[in-house]
Amino acid sequence: MTDEPTYELFSFWRSSATYRVRVALALKGLSARERNVDLDAGEQRGADFLRVNPMGAIPALVQAGGPTITQSLAILEYLDETHPQPALLPADPVGRARVRSIAAGLTSDTHPLITPRIRRYLTTQGGFDDAAWRRWQIQWFSTGLQALEARLGAEAQTGAYCHGDSVTMADICLASIVAVMRVFKIEVPDIPTVDAIMARCEAHEAFARAHPLRQAGAPRPA
Amino acid sequence: MTDEPTYELFSFWRSSATYRVRVALALKGLSARERNVDLDAGEQRGADFLRVNPMGAIPALVQAGGPTITQSLAILEYLDETHPQPALLPADPVGRARVRSIAAGLTSDTHPLITPRIRRYLTTQGGFDDAAWRRWQIQWFSTGLQALEARLGAEAQTGAYCHGDSVTMADICLASIVAVMRVFKIEVPDIPTVDAIMARCEAHEAFARAHPLRQAGAPRPA
Repeated sequence: MTDEPTYELFSFWRSSATYRVRVALALKGLSARERNVDLDAGEQRGADFLRVNPMGAIPALVQAGGPTITQSLAILEYLDETHPQPALLPADPVGRARVRSIAAGLTSDTHPLITPRIRRYLTTQGGFDDAAWRRWQIQWFSTGLQALEARLGAEAQTGAYCHGDSVTMADICLASIVAVMRVFKIEVPDIPTVDAIMARCEAHEAFARAHPLRQAGAPRPA
Repeated sequence: MTDEPTYELFSFWRSSATYRVRVALALKGLSARERNVDLDAGEQRGADFLRVNPMGAIPALVQAGGPTITQSLAILEYLDETHPQPALLPADPVGRARVRSIAAGLTSDTHPLITPRIRRYLTTQGGFDDAAWRRWQIQWFSTGLQALEARLGAEAQTGAYCHGDSVTMADICLASIVAVMRVFKIEVPDIPTVDAIMARCEAHEAFARAHPLRQAGAPRPA
C-alpha cells in the first residue's frame, strides 16, 4: 500500500465489473474503501446511489475531493493513466488494440447479457422460468468464452496470459467473467487456453483477494 | 484524404459498431474500402469471415500488411493513438475517463442487447414474438438514453457535445445508437440534451456520410 489518496468504491460482492476494479487497484498497490450497493435489493436505483451515479450502475470509483468515475473499463484506463506501473496495457498501439479488443469482447459482448436487470426483465416480462434463464446464461457464457478460446488459440501474441506473459486488462476482464460464471456454477467445456490463463490469474494475490466469495455480503460456504 | 495506407473495413450497413469506425475514419481524414458482411444472412459466422475475425463480429479493420483490429472502441482508441488529430479524447485523465465512461455506457449497456444474435435467440428460443421483441428494443434504448440524459443534464462538463464543445468518442457512440434506433423507427421521449447533441452530429459531414441508410446494402427509400 502507498500514500495515495483513498478511494471509495461503490460495489457489490458478485459484480463482475466491480471485480475488475478491485484487481486493478490491488495490482497497482492502491486501496479503496468499499461501499456496498445491494443489487439484489435494487439499491442501485435508490436516490442515495443515484446521487453518486445518475446512471444507476456500479462500480463507481470516488476519489477524495475528486471526480466520480464510472464504467469498469474507463476506471481501468484512468488508473493506468494516473498510476502507470505496473502497466495494464502493452506499450505498442497494435498490442494495446488487441488487449482492448479482448477486454471489450468480454465486457460488451458477454457480461451485459447476464446482469441482474436482464434477469429481472426476462423473468418478469419475458416469460422466462428458471430453466430458461439458466439456458440463456449458459448460451452467452459459452458463446463468449469459446469465441475467445478460438482467438487466443489462433493468435501468436497469446502467452502465459491473454497477451504475452504479463497481466493486462484482458486478463482482468477474462477472470471477472469466469469468476462470476463459477458463482453461478456454470462450466464451459473445451476452453483449455482460457482455463490455463484463469489458473495463472487465480494464483495471483491481487485476483484471489478480489474473488466474489471473499467480499462482504457474499453467501458463506455451506 | 491523406496518403495514409488504405484500410479495409469489414462492415454491414445497419451495424451501429461499424458506424462508429466510419465516423472516426472520416474525422481523421482516412479512407477505408468497405467489405460487406451480411449479418442478416449470417455471413459473420461463415468460414471466410472467421479467417478475418475468429470472434465472428464486425467491425474488423484491416490495415494493408498489418494487423486486424476488432471491437469498435478498440479501433477508435487505435486510430486516436496512431492519428492523434483531431483528438477523439480530451487531454486530461479525468475528462478521458468521463468520455470513455459515456462511450462504454452506450456500447456495453445498450447496444449489445439489440444485436441480431439476441433477436435470433429471443425469437427462436426465447418465445418472443415481434411485439415482444419490439418492447425489448424500446426498453433498452429508453433505459440507456434516458440514463444518459440524466447524466448529461447533471454534469457541468456537458457542452455542445457530450464533453465540451468538440466531438469525442462519446458523441460517436451516442450517434451510432440513435442512428440505428431511428432505422428501427423507435423514438425515446424526454431526452432534449441527447437530441440537441444528435442534431449537431447530424450536421457534421463525417457523421452524415456514415449514416446507415447511405451505405451499400441498405434498403432504398420507398
